[in-house]
Amino acid sequence: MRAFVYILRCADGSYYTGSHRGEDPAARAAQHNAGAYPEAWTFRRRPVELVWAQDFDRVDEAIAAERQIKGWSRAKKEALMGRDWNELKRLAKGRTGQGDATAFERALRRDRAGRTMTKSNPGNFFEDFQLGQVMRHATPRTITTGDVSLYTALTGSRYALFSADTFAQACGLPQAPVDPLLAFHIVFGKTVPDISLNAVANLGYAEGLFLAAVYPGDTLHATSEVIGLKENSNGKTGVVHVRTTGTNQRGETALSYARWVMVNRRGADALAPKKGPKLAVVVDKADLRAPYGLVFDRYDFDLAGAPHVYEDYAVGEKIDHVDGMTVQEAEHQIATRLYQNTAKVHFDFLQQKDSRFGKRLVYGGVAISIARALAFNGLANAAYMLAINAGRHVNPLFAWDTVYAWSEVLDKAELTPTVGALRLRLVATKNVPCAEHPWKDAAGEYDPAVILDFDYWAAIPRGAS
Amino acid sequence: MRAFVYILRCADGSYYTGSHRGEDPAARAAQHNAGAYPEAWTFRRRPVELVWAQDFDRVDEAIAAERQIKGWSRAKKEALMGRDWNELKRLAKGRTGQGDATAFERALRRDRAGRTMTKSNPGNFFEDFQLGQVMRHATPRTITTGDVSLYTALTGSRYALFSADTFAQACGLPQAPVDPLLAFHIVFGKTVPDISLNAVANLGYAEGLFLAAVYPGDTLHATSEVIGLKENSNGKTGVVHVRTTGTNQRGETALSYARWVMVNRRGADALAPKKGPKLAVVVDKADLRAPYGLVFDRYDFDLAGAPHVYEDYAVGEKIDHVDGMTVQEAEHQIATRLYQNTAKVHFDFLQQKDSRFGKRLVYGGVAISIARALAFNGLANAAYMLAINAGRHVNPLFAWDTVYAWSEVLDKAELTPTVGALRLRLVATKNVPCAEHPWKDAAGEYDPAVILDFDYWAAIPRGAS
Amino acid sequence: MRAFVYILRCADGSYYTGSHRGEDPAARAAQHNAGAYPEAWTFRRRPVELVWAQDFDRVDEAIAAERQIKGWSRAKKEALMGRDWNELKRLAKGRTGQGDATAFERALRRDRAGRTMTKSNPGNFFEDFQLGQVMRHATPRTITTGDVSLYTALTGSRYALFSADTFAQACGLPQAPVDPLLAFHIVFGKTVPDISLNAVANLGYAEGLFLAAVYPGDTLHATSEVIGLKENSNGKTGVVHVRTTGTNQRGETALSYARWVMVNRRGADALAPKKGPKLAVVVDKADLRAPYGLVFDRYDFDLAGAPHVYEDYAVGEKIDHVDGMTVQEAEHQIATRLYQNTAKVHFDFLQQKDSRFGKRLVYGGVAISIARALAFNGLANAAYMLAINAGRHVNPLFAWDTVYAWSEVLDKAELTPTVGALRLRLVATKNVPCAEHPWKDAAGEYDPAVILDFDYWAAIPRGAS
Repeated sequence: MRAFVYILRCADGSYYTGSHRGEDPAARAAQHNAGAYPEAWTFRRRPVELVWAQDFDRVDEAIAAERQIKGWSRAKKEALMGRDWNELKRLAKGRTGQGDATAFERALRRDRAGRTMTKSNPGNFFEDFQLGQVMRHATPRTITTGDVSLYTALTGSRYALFSADTFAQACGLPQAPVDPLLAFHIVFGKTVPDISLNAVANLGYAEGLFLAAVYPGDTLHATSEVIGLKENSNGKTGVVHVRTTGTNQRGETALSYARWVMVNRRGADALAPKKGPKLAVVVDKADLRAPYGLVFDRYDFDLAGAPHVYEDYAVGEKIDHVDGMTVQEAEHQIATRLYQNTAKVHFDFLQQKDSRFGKRLVYGGVAISIARALAFNGLANAAYMLAINAGRHVNPLFAWDTVYAWSEVLDKAELTPTVGALRLRLVATKNVPCAEHPWKDAAGEYDPAVILDFDYWAAIPRGAS
Repeated sequence: MRAFVYILRCADGSYYTGSHRGEDPAARAAQHNAGAYPEAWTFRRRPVELVWAQDFDRVDEAIAAERQIKGWSRAKKEALMGRDWNELKRLAKGRTGQGDATAFERALRRDRAGRTMTKSNPGNFFEDFQLGQVMRHATPRTITTGDVSLYTALTGSRYALFSADTFAQACGLPQAPVDPLLAFHIVFGKTVPDISLNAVANLGYAEGLFLAAVYPGDTLHATSEVIGLKENSNGKTGVVHVRTTGTNQRGETALSYARWVMVNRRGADALAPKKGPKLAVVVDKADLRAPYGLVFDRYDFDLAGAPHVYEDYAVGEKIDHVDGMTVQEAEHQIATRLYQNTAKVHFDFLQQKDSRFGKRLVYGGVAISIARALAFNGLANAAYMLAINAGRHVNPLFAWDTVYAWSEVLDKAELTPTVGALRLRLVATKNVPCAEHPWKDAAGEYDPAVILDFDYWAAIPRGAS
Repeated sequence: MRAFVYILRCADGSYYTGSHRGEDPAARAAQHNAGAYPEAWTFRRRPVELVWAQDFDRVDEAIAAERQIKGWSRAKKEALMGRDWNELKRLAKGRTGQGDATAFERALRRDRAGRTMTKSNPGNFFEDFQLGQVMRHATPRTITTGDVSLYTALTGSRYALFSADTFAQACGLPQAPVDPLLAFHIVFGKTVPDISLNAVANLGYAEGLFLAAVYPGDTLHATSEVIGLKENSNGKTGVVHVRTTGTNQRGETALSYARWVMVNRRGADALAPKKGPKLAVVVDKADLRAPYGLVFDRYDFDLAGAPHVYEDYAVGEKIDHVDGMTVQEAEHQIATRLYQNTAKVHFDFLQQKDSRFGKRLVYGGVAISIARALAFNGLANAAYMLAINAGRHVNPLFAWDTVYAWSEVLDKAELTPTVGALRLRLVATKNVPCAEHPWKDAAGEYDPAVILDFDYWAAIPRGAS
């Protein structure tokens, strides 16, 4: 006989812990909301929301766990809900001394995965996310020159700033920094197991800022906070908004961005209404920061590959990046694993054969990086990405597709006497060259060839004034 | 007129050196054994065994060489048989002073490859191996962070211990060590030209131990000793058992393992009976050593990606690792070349087209590493492999196959107050997910989907006691 | 109304600057040569040559620019022609103080790409090259151990000298140097955007010399001088000869080679006759230099993988390297991007589908490196390439082709008491093993299987004398 323990968050913010036979905590929560238990704590504190549940093989185990949790502090309950095992351990220690993890606590850890009782991670469903919940993602990463070589070999990037220590040093930096997009993909990859393993679609990015420059040898950690939850009217999915932060080994923020994904729901019952956050359409110019030390007064335009400075670009100007890059299965898989992003859709052909596309999807970050590498041809001096205003993967990319790209100058900003910034729209297409700048039709619909619509700020040398 | 010089090892351990016209030393040895030369040294010392032979273009060259070898010490003859050119050179110097390599010695080196008179390596055949023979393998390798990046990108490994210096430092290590499997594949790769270039099948591993941890910057050398020789009854092949040791630049043993391969014979004549060694079925728990410095008292379970500790695993427990990874030709070729393993079956499509499989075989080490990377999902804290008890490549893997994996806990051991060890069976399949844990049927036959049956020990944090 | 400014170089070496309506500077130059303007400076200084032109959207802009250029020094005009923006900026500063780039100068930089008014690089056409012109190529590169790992993983190279720091140190070097071919490909890659983006064919190499050894951490820059220009009789193409030099961060020459490519012409008008340079057929033995510090007195033949020394090789000897390597699309693309060589023919399948081959071409350097890696089997001790005498890509290589190789010893030279050099012809084939050493037929025509004919010098240990 299976059973479960559950916690409800009441309308007044208090928590209710209960246990029940069966396997459906959502149905149990719905009964509470329907007023089925007039004597319960919850009756006058409705609506309640199911915030945590845990399966047990036996009813007596569930009852024992219910009693134990009822004795816990609010902080410890919240650590439990947030699956914050470090905090849970700390709180447990605080209470009773050294290392007193109980059998139940071990059972909880054992059962982190929820209803399947397996140790493998089935990913979070929409119901698993809480507004304000903070996730510390797994697998910190020391970025090395090996990663940089692979990034070059997988994208074809030719920006001198990331290619040569000498060039970077002439720009005031201690050595060649890591391409901000490589750091972005690595941070992003860490979030996948917690946020988007059950994602239906990666809907967009906003408010991305690249702060402390990342150098080989730096170690990046990632955390995400849930900043918005919005269920879809179909009852099957919801949109989860998170703000993810990549932090280096000194605790400095290397990058930060908001992202929203459509995630499957576990059940189809109505949930308490939740809303998405308000995100900025464009990163404010005042928030743009050139990486510490960057000066362009000794910039070598020959070595950079083009003579164009900040003043040479006009708002509204469009640039075809001309070259095309055909993607192979091995290439996007190697790149995506380099980022330790192991979402099944990119790797499991057997499973994807039966999907609506019938094949593996290329990770969107691969498209961004190829497009940015192609953009060298026309934007060679706009190497350093400062901010991401908005990003959208408009259509899926597959192996054997050829990626082309074009850019439009959307805005300009002057950061320092030698450093300017261009706001650029980077549009990538598949199997259609970009001489005609394909984007949207009169009705605002994207051209079917467009795969990426990416709006960002990049630093560029200012011309002598 | 072709000729050859040959050495026979007699029943009393003495060596007989002779020369003869033609190209068939094995036939000549058979005549000795048949008693065709009653006056010869060999007649009363039968059975004899052919232990060395060398072709010459002209009879007079062969006779001159025969005379020269007859004057050599036993040690020098054995250096010649073992193709130990460094030792041969040393002995030559010892005898007559500096650098007296004779024309014949140069000819010998020239003709190392044996009967083809070419400088390229045709690989060793079963008859070329001697019990007790020690081979110093070519191409030492300084392992770098570049190798580590590629390993991540080719396998998708997410174990925090190998990914982040900070995480490894919190576990008492100076920096992130190299995944023991990467070191294993690199050591293994070096042995292929000497041991398995003419292998029919890689039959198994045993008694593998990972000792000194390997860090980027370390240089690994490999040596192998022949510990068993067993001819097959078909007369066409034999099984060669070796113990291979990987040593770092300080002379410390980084890893050691036994391996046996089926190797083609050059001829089909009967050989003196030889036997295989006795190898342990499981590495003894008392031989398990956590890498120097490893302590898990500050282990960060969030960053590691799962809360499960030593105590959470029960013997008999089975874990489906859920995810699948489809392999591409480019991926397995890149990985196998990274290990400097250049066995033809993995690379030469033209040749393999006419093989029984009709395509290139994926190196078995690629399957091991992918399966171990998949095992993160359920065994995230069992990162560090301590020992290999047994390993068998049950069925071949090809490009476009999708690899899945599951594990079973076979045994447990407590190494230090903070470090435990799990004995795990890692089973990998192709094109069949592992929710049902496919392995063997009632008759003990492997499920045809199984490609790997790998039995190893891995370190894991112990829970607070 | 479009217009252009142009500069003609007169027969007496003087420059004439003019402007005109329309879009065809070549036609305008032809009118000058035809004597259409008897009053012009050019009339008595014919033949003239069009050395520079720049489009403008409006006639008044062109006239303003013409006036400005007419006031410039000869040095500044030449900086303009050479598109040497750093020099142009320096000269501008010298004239009027700090940072006085005019709107016109900015316009010039803006329009570097010439007639399309786009910022992307359409590549140089035959008419764009000037004899004696020096190009500083873009994207310097700090070579890292990550690049070395990828080179190993993409080629399967097993030469101990490049694989292990300990082995290299025993050979007198501070650490394992970078394979000279890796440095060559990286330098070569930088030249592509300036020299061969519009190339029809890469015709050959000569006079290649590897000088300062390259170590991980070194930064390579590349410059090329145009040393020959020869138009083809079809009027559609010409042959451009360049000498390219790769320089490290200390200003030392790491390598240098001559190369000639067939490049498309923009127009079909007759040009002033030009000639190709005379290049040495073979690098002079006296110019061969072993890398600084290299001594082979402690060379370990076991670790190197073969016993053969300098004295073991005879001129005329041919060696089949036996093994075959099948190339995949992902592999050659990753390798070619590693070298930051982004020539479209290697990457854009959509475009190549309609080419005469119907598929992507493998970069010739990939074939060289695979063949050299295969050559380990027979030439394991000839690791270090000292010079390139001649190189020719005889037939194109495509993905799924299997590469084989053989070598012939062409010559020998003794460099130091322990270092010898072999002059080797390396022949690579596709889909035909090399036991029969396929090369040329009686009429001197290459066997259709041959893809590469490469003549080089490599260092090898000398035997004890």
